[in-house]
Formats: sequence, structure tokens, C-alpha cells
Amino acid sequence: MAIPYPHFIATAKAAMDAGLHAPSSSAMLSQDDLKKIAAYKAVEYVESGMVLGLGTGSTARHAVDRIGQLLRQGKLKDIVGIPTSMKTHDQALSLGIPLSDLDAHPVVDLAIDGADEVDPFLNLVKGRGGSLLREKMVEGACKKFVVIVDDSKLVNFLGGSGLAMPVEVIRFCWKFTAARLQKLFEDAGCVAKLRTGEKEEPFVTDNGNYIVDLYFEGSIGDLKAASDAILQLAGVVEHGMFLDMATTVIIAGELGLTVKNK
Amino acid sequence: MAIPYPHFIATAKAAMDAGLHAPSSSAMLSQDDLKKIAAYKAVEYVESGMVLGLGTGSTARHAVDRIGQLLRQGKLKDIVGIPTSMKTHDQALSLGIPLSDLDAHPVVDLAIDGADEVDPFLNLVKGRGGSLLREKMVEGACKKFVVIVDDSKLVNFLGGSGLAMPVEVIRFCWKFTAARLQKLFEDAGCVAKLRTGEKEEPFVTDNGNYIVDLYFEGSIGDLKAASDAILQLAGVVEHGMFLDMATTVIIAGELGLTVKNK
Repeated sequence: MAIPYPHFIATAKAAMDAGLHAPSSSAMLSQDDLKKIAAYKAVEYVESGMVLGLGTGSTARHAVDRIGQLLRQGKLKDIVGIPTSMKTHDQALSLGIPLSDLDAHPVVDLAIDGADEVDPFLNLVKGRGGSLLREKMVEGACKKFVVIVDDSKLVNFLGGSGLAMPVEVIRFCWKFTAARLQKLFEDAGCVAKLRTGEKEEPFVTDNGNYIVDLYFEGSIGDLKAASDAILQLAGVVEHGMFLDMATTVIIAGELGLTVKNK
Repeated sequence: MAIPYPHFIATAKAAMDAGLHAPSSSAMLSQDDLKKIAAYKAVEYVESGMVLGLGTGSTARHAVDRIGQLLRQGKLKDIVGIPTSMKTHDQALSLGIPLSDLDAHPVVDLAIDGADEVDPFLNLVKGRGGSLLREKMVEGACKKFVVIVDDSKLVNFLGGSGLAMPVEVIRFCWKFTAARLQKLFEDAGCVAKLRTGEKEEPFVTDNGNYIVDLYFEGSIGDLKAASDAILQLAGVVEHGMFLDMATTVIIAGELGLTVKNK
């Protein structure tokens, strides 16, 4: 059940701070506005003294901005951030958020991050931004993992958006690995493509690896079995399915804000 | 049942070629002699026209040398080698063995490689040389995988030699990953150590990753379950257990040569 924005915006200081002052019509909200509303709501879960996993991407960016703002305002203190990418590291640093890593802080209180797909069981696809591996390491070490999305990310089943499910692979014989991935899911009409940049050069992750994007026509089937099968392929480093990891998903839609808990 | 060397050496031209001419006593055979005998025996499985996976390490090196020799002598032809490491690539190149990779040759007829441990079910530990990932990719793509060892490599259970079971991990927060690996096998008295070089600098694999060596006091337990648990840790790239992959193991011991088939 979504909390309608007039109510939400009247009561949630976060949304006010987000600069969304009493819109006369929901049509005024852009997709980026929705991302910002979800992000600000998630930051309400943050308490002083926490070790925080800082996500990567266009939605998580708003959450990191907001945390920086609350620190500057003195409303939060003693926060240690664990960034999930070099990009987020740089953003958080510029905002004055103290940073560390999993080696020094192996237990993380709370992580906030976006997702590319969310299924009805709160399983996720992540990594279209290319940071799936570090995100999975940090978010797998969290007591609470709050996912923030606009409602375009909701799917009936993972892969259901028709967009990519990314797999990080080592560079060595990546074509061979891509072919094996495609074959693994041939019944689901899988097509595997190397992710490339503007000049058709391979996209390189923060870990120096490539990304093979998997596109599905049909359902992947049993997700746990699919996960194990992918990980069993030598040459695969990690995949973008985040199964049974999210504890809360905050969804911002035209009609309001929905919070789902595991 | 081992074939005694007097018989083996009298009948197997490979061993003669290995320079092991009618030893008067088995005490004359060094560990390196045993590796060479196993390697030369394995090369008897090679036929002209094959795509060959070329292993890495002190035993596999003898097999690669022997293949180069037979090519030069014209006894083998139309061989394409798929090296499992940069080191083997360089060795094979210097011997004039034509080379390719899995992208161009996704199906490999036969691979020959050493192992660090072999259990009674022909499961292996490999990768003390640091090439486990490429070895697993190539040897996983083989129709036949012939493993060559001296008898010091036989164990009752994997990890049973007390030597390392290597895990390739990404550099990012490797301490965190090492701690999780150690915790995964705490019941088996596992100790995880970063592999280092002569100057205590981290050993870096051909893929730019680190190696965490796992040492066990007791049994790992169900190997398949252990494999899945290791691979499910984000930050792990691959491990050195090669389960259900070897089709033949050739074991050279003081008393003779033993061939075990799957």
C-alpha cells in the first residue's frame, strides 16, 4: 500500500528537504524526483555511529548526497562510509564523509543502494552500473540492506525487464565464457553480449574485469540453481543477481511511496 | 596395480626417450625422474591433429617438452596447444608448438597437467603454482584430462597433505575475503594466508588477482558443498579443487607406474 505523496510530503521532512515542496500534481515528479524521494526516505534509517555501505548509481547518489548534507548540518555524526565503487568513493570524499573499507570494518550496520530490478520476493538484479562485485561484498556484510528504486524497476521475475543481467568475467578468453553463459540459459532464449563503451572498447570494472550482459526472453527458472551454475563456470567472477539479501525495499512511484520489508 | 619399471622401461619407448635407461636400482629415480616418467607416459595419449591443453608446473613442463620433441622429430603433427599460463605459453612458444586459445578452440581434445593432491576418487587440488583459474577453464573444456603425478601427491582426502588449497580472490578487501574463507571452514581448523613472494609482496596471478592459501587440520567434508560455498563468497574468483574433472591419473612411484581411469 503506497503512502500518497501529499501525505508523505506533508509528514516526511526528508521529502521536504529534497526540494519537493507540495507539488500540485503528481505529474510534476520526474523519474529522478522519485529516485530522490526513495533515497531520502532510506536515509531516515541512518543513525549516528553507524558503519554505512554506500551504494553506486543514479539513485544511491542521492542517498550519499543526503548523508553528506546531514553530517554537515550536524544531524548525523560518527558515520563511517564503505563505498561500493571508486565513483562513490570520490563522491563521498568530496562530501566529507569519513571512509573506510571491509578489511577494517568487516561488519556493516546498514547499506543503501539502488537496483535495476526488484522481484516480488525482494530478489534483485544489480550491476548495470558495473559495480556489482564490490556492491555484493559490502551489502553481503550488512545487518540491514535498504534498496531504493523508482517503480519502473519492479518486475514479476528477474530478467523480466528485458534489460541486462550482468556477469563479471575475467578477461582471459571472455568469448569462451560468454558462449558458455549463453548456452547455460539457452532454454530461456539467452543472448550474451560483452559490455562496451562509447568507442566499442570493452567496459572494464573497478577490479580490472569485463562485464558480459545476459538478455533473457523467458524466465531464468530457479534463481538459486541459476546462481550456482553461473558461479561454477571458471572464468566467472560474480553475477548481478542479489538473492535474499535486501531487508527493505523502498519504492517511489507516481502515486506514492511503498516500503516492503523482508 | 603398478607396472614395475624394469618392465615399463623395457617396453615403453617414452621412458627410454626420457633418458631412464635400465636403472639397476629404483633408488636411482629422483622425484623429478618420476614426474618425467609420468609425463612421457601421458604424451602417449597425444595423437596428431589434436587440440591440446598444456598444463603448468614442474611435472607438466616435462610433458610440454616431450610434445615439442615429438613435433620436431615429425612423430606428431598438426597439434594446436592451449597454454594454461603465461609461463607455459612462453615454454611452448620456444619449443615451436603452435598455440591458440579457448576463444578460437572452445573444444579441447586432451589436456595434460600435474596436480598437487589426488584423492581416491580422482578429485584434485591444483594451483600451488598459481595457475588454477586458467587451468580450470582449459581443463573444463576437455574431452579427456590426463593428470600426471609422482606418488607423493596421493592423499586420502583433499587437504590431507597439509599443504595449501589455493583460492584466487580479487584484491579489493582481500583480508575480508580471507577471513570469510577461514570462517567457512573453522570446523576443519582452517587457516587462511595470503600467498606472498620472496620479499613478502603479494603473489599476483596471471589475471591480476591474489591467492589466499587455505590450510586444513581436518577434512573439508562434502567437497561439492565446499566448492559451492567458496564460490558463493563475493570476492572469490575460483578455487583449486578440481572435482570430477580428471579422466585419467598417471602415478609414478618408486615401484612403478599406475594408471587410474575414471
